Amino acid sequence: MAISKISLKAEVLDANAPVANEINRYLSERGVFCVNVIGGAGAGKTSALIGIIKRLGLPNVHVIEGDIAGDIDTETLRKLGVVAYQLHTNGECHINAPTMKEILRENEPKEGSILYVENIGNLVCPAEFVIGEHRKMLVSSAPEGSDKPYKYPHSFEVVQAVVLTKADLAPYVKFDRAYYDKGVHALNPTAPIFETSAAQDTGFEAVAEWILAERKKLSLD
Amino acid sequence: MAISKISLKAEVLDANAPVANEINRYLSERGVFCVNVIGGAGAGKTSALIGIIKRLGLPNVHVIEGDIAGDIDTETLRKLGVVAYQLHTNGECHINAPTMKEILRENEPKEGSILYVENIGNLVCPAEFVIGEHRKMLVSSAPEGSDKPYKYPHSFEVVQAVVLTKADLAPYVKFDRAYYDKGVHALNPTAPIFETSAAQDTGFEAVAEWILAERKKLSLD
Repeated sequence: MAISKISLKAEVLDANAPVANEINRYLSERGVFCVNVIGGAGAGKTSALIGIIKRLGLPNVHVIEGDIAGDIDTETLRKLGVVAYQLHTNGECHINAPTMKEILRENEPKEGSILYVENIGNLVCPAEFVIGEHRKMLVSSAPEGSDKPYKYPHSFEVVQAVVLTKADLAPYVKFDRAYYDKGVHALNPTAPIFETSAAQDTGFEAVAEWILAERKKLSLD
Repeated sequence: MAISKISLKAEVLDANAPVANEINRYLSERGVFCVNVIGGAGAGKTSALIGIIKRLGLPNVHVIEGDIAGDIDTETLRKLGVVAYQLHTNGECHINAPTMKEILRENEPKEGSILYVENIGNLVCPAEFVIGEHRKMLVSSAPEGSDKPYKYPHSFEVVQAVVLTKADLAPYVKFDRAYYDKGVHALNPTAPIFETSAAQDTGFEAVAEWILAERKKLSLD
């Protein structure tokens, strides 16, 4: 190839970081605590958000919904009364800091709110880009399989918490929880793993409490 | 950013295409029919492959297993007696043609065989890269949800067949087959949708027959 792919990538990441820092300062100054939620397509990120947001209190949470196409999840959230902004990445496989800056310019999150950013469904690329968040959270579903930490290590490494979704399906897909936990903890010894089920509306209380506790640590509550 | 992301991407894709053409010629000349299998992380690509390969006959199929890390699936396949080569993308979110060329140089597929390439689990990026294949096939699971064609259209657009996996879980995840089919066909009116279940070992006969028929069309059988 004419240009090395690796050097291109380094250049893109280098350009991203200062914008992400700028966003982080802007949000912190406004007392907005930002969670960047990553996970594969169909992992259940929106359903997890609905479970969590009910516990956090609707008016306190603003959501940025990242999508390549459409606004299905944004519409779902708005119908529930959630303040949700639609971010389109124009075909890109992840949200980057400049796109994030643009949407924040148009949609100012309420002072003191929690800003929940649902990234593009992709267990690879979003892990590489900081977008100004205070915490990164991974949504990983039981039907995706207990081998995911071993196959997609970077996503498990960079987050501060793992939300295991669709846990009600675990028995049907022979999900091996011990093997999964071992893989997660080898990469990330400190991240809690929250077991949840949107179908049964269970487990989200603990995730909400974790978010509030992390916010408190930064005195953004 | 210093360099436009879009122009970078165009450059990478431009450099990829001629290498892909070269691979396609090489494989065609050897009578090797190549299927590039894409799909999200945990969609069930390896389990589908095992279902399909049983019908195609083990010695006739060579497999390239694309992974970011590890060799879990390659080991699973080898234990079943499948000729499988491990391809690592060094962190990249998709297989590209130069990486494909490299592994083919080291591992020559048998003349007249079917070469089944399992791409990185990612419903976004692999759709953009040709790697010398004759056909692209999408693996998409019921638990990922029936809205996937609407959210990740490009992957559904570029393939010649869709394999719907984990269909046995459809009732538990409220999978709406009519909505799914409508989304797929709006993007891709000609691709067949094969409903399969690895847990019940059903539906793979039809996928295998489709592969053989497509190979016949190119007189590679």
